[in-house]
Amino acid sequence: MIPLEEARQRILSAIRPTGPETVPLAAGWNRVLARPVVARLTQPPADVSAMDGYAVRAADAVTGATLTVTGAAPAGHPFAGQVGPGEAVRIFTGGFVPPGADAILIQENAKAEGARLAVTEGVAVGRWIRRRGLDFAEGGELLPAGRRLTARDIGLAAAANHPWLTVHRRPRIGILATGDEIALPGDPLPAGGIVSSNAHALAAVIASAGGEGCILPIAPDDAGSIAALAGSGGYDLLVTTGGASVGEHDLVQKALGQSTTPGGFALDFWKIAMRPGKPLIWGRLGAMPVLGLPGNPVSALVCAVVFLLPALARMQGLPDSGPRTIRAVAGVDLPENDQRADHLRASLIPAEGGIVATPAARQDSSMLAVLASADGLILRAPFAPALPKGSVVEVIPLAALGV
Amino acid sequence: MIPLEEARQRILSAIRPTGPETVPLAAGWNRVLARPVVARLTQPPADVSAMDGYAVRAADAVTGATLTVTGAAPAGHPFAGQVGPGEAVRIFTGGFVPPGADAILIQENAKAEGARLAVTEGVAVGRWIRRRGLDFAEGGELLPAGRRLTARDIGLAAAANHPWLTVHRRPRIGILATGDEIALPGDPLPAGGIVSSNAHALAAVIASAGGEGCILPIAPDDAGSIAALAGSGGYDLLVTTGGASVGEHDLVQKALGQSTTPGGFALDFWKIAMRPGKPLIWGRLGAMPVLGLPGNPVSALVCAVVFLLPALARMQGLPDSGPRTIRAVAGVDLPENDQRADHLRASLIPAEGGIVATPAARQDSSMLAVLASADGLILRAPFAPALPKGSVVEVIPLAALGV
Repeated sequence: MIPLEEARQRILSAIRPTGPETVPLAAGWNRVLARPVVARLTQPPADVSAMDGYAVRAADAVTGATLTVTGAAPAGHPFAGQVGPGEAVRIFTGGFVPPGADAILIQENAKAEGARLAVTEGVAVGRWIRRRGLDFAEGGELLPAGRRLTARDIGLAAAANHPWLTVHRRPRIGILATGDEIALPGDPLPAGGIVSSNAHALAAVIASAGGEGCILPIAPDDAGSIAALAGSGGYDLLVTTGGASVGEHDLVQKALGQSTTPGGFALDFWKIAMRPGKPLIWGRLGAMPVLGLPGNPVSALVCAVVFLLPALARMQGLPDSGPRTIRAVAGVDLPENDQRADHLRASLIPAEGGIVATPAARQDSSMLAVLASADGLILRAPFAPALPKGSVVEVIPLAALGV
Repeated sequence: MIPLEEARQRILSAIRPTGPETVPLAAGWNRVLARPVVARLTQPPADVSAMDGYAVRAADAVTGATLTVTGAAPAGHPFAGQVGPGEAVRIFTGGFVPPGADAILIQENAKAEGARLAVTEGVAVGRWIRRRGLDFAEGGELLPAGRRLTARDIGLAAAANHPWLTVHRRPRIGILATGDEIALPGDPLPAGGIVSSNAHALAAVIASAGGEGCILPIAPDDAGSIAALAGSGGYDLLVTTGGASVGEHDLVQKALGQSTTPGGFALDFWKIAMRPGKPLIWGRLGAMPVLGLPGNPVSALVCAVVFLLPALARMQGLPDSGPRTIRAVAGVDLPENDQRADHLRASLIPAEGGIVATPAARQDSSMLAVLASADGLILRAPFAPALPKGSVVEVIPLAALGV
């Protein structure tokens, strides 16, 4: 058994980012930039008005003065002439400030009658003018490589005139569920069988992190079948579930060992000091990394949060090295922990003194309904001492991950 | 000008959830259930072993005893016989406990030699047996209608034997950007023009909330063109941007008023006491709700967070009524506020005493780069008093929204 953090580091250090892909701006949301977005223009492209009003010479536009309106400058229609002494040009938000003008008299401070404009409140030089380049300047880096694009970023890239973005290709993850006892939902169930849930749950985990899960047909408990499916290739990472435990039926390692894939199977480690999820395989089949998760659905999902999500982040060029945690307050006394890092399924309830994390009464790793209704996982380090109710604990919030 | 919260309530009260749609389990992640998921089977379907070991009669399996192994019960292959006195059946995690056995002797506590099994540590009745229905029972509601499905939920629905899920149809949102001065990224830019960023940013906001944005062609500043595009129909909600301000160029209301759509345009309100984003239109074109956002990109995005995201949640049958906020600590002194609810673009930095929220030095609503680099929006209520640095403030965190 190796420590959880060591396992995660060994996994992450073996992962390489996917290559770049050019996608339309409209497909860029939530993707991770492989190249920075550099401004292709200056915004605003000229001094523009921040308000609806009149472009004036401040020296003329004093309280009580009367100006002559000589034209208009709506956004998109610059005024062709210039603003001379005693003159004003009607202007709207975003309109280019015509040459000669040095301030915007807002319409609330003037009274127009035909071409005559009475100034009811004077204006200072520079007022209500947005200077050229206030937002950004051509050539400046607006968004760095390695950034997951928000909706605001998409707007900024658009404003900077990018119809295309270069992002990391979505990691393609093969998902191979094994076991004589499992069948897909809706399919005929063998005697003594259960419905397979891991593959679809893992595909959803992968989708939540921006990857693409490909669900392979279920492999029976037969080394040859597992080896053939595992070797079918085309994935940036293969995730298996089931057949990883200590009994005679831990077939996955054996099957991978029999693979005819060039380079064969190289095991890095298996068995991690964690609960749920001790029997976890990490290795490489030819050039393809292989993560062997336990067949137990709760173990498989907790291991996916702890190891697969960081791996997916790394594959997309993100710096993440582990799931984000928050601090919470234990809602009950917590017993001391044994040698395995524990992940207690817990409710998270906001309260006056902070978020209260209370473990579910039963932590059996077969209870998927308990996991689904949990708000987060309380982390308990190996050999952590008993903690009284009210102590600060570290928690992985699950719902915010979409997991 | 109406208060922000009143505006949001008027918007939400006019929104109806979309109808149900049946999708494959694999497409269910992050969708919102329109019908509950009810267990179609009992899990586990029988008493099963929680460990690899031997199914025994506890009364016989005392320390020092020797048992006879009569068969095996791997997961998916129930043992056909029963466990008689002095007998044991090899069993693996998930295997059905054969009749006659009342405990699982884990393999670490026994020594097998051919068919003879020496018990090195005795076992109590019921030990390591997961009872039938421990996870869930047939007919029980596992996931309620109105729940946004996590990866764990997908696993649970699979385990409960659901190949299909009934979810709310994705809201389809038409997005109509208006303005003579704007052009799509990469398209030729008119003199004095700027690149259109709102439509794509809003489509990304809509995607982040599980909706489907349809970007209409840009409408010039011409009431007839705007009316024709707005009336093209097929949307659960139409969002316009631009042409909503106070000047002569606030064409959207005028254009909608000219629409030949049956039922015509009914304005509910426009102008909200908020900053950025005062000029906001809410009404109905025939049966279709219309949300008119300002053309200013920062105003449009802030209004989308404040009004469009809750509307999208409501359309998908979620109970959300406003953006989630967190508490933070002001990183600088905050001046008193005027009559408009303010949304200060701010950085959020975790620190010892909580998250420190510091507004960007410039809050000009034309600065998209400042918005993109902000971590959140500090909420300042109308007429909020000046606050010293270190005071508690309410913040909408943006990055967690994908916005």
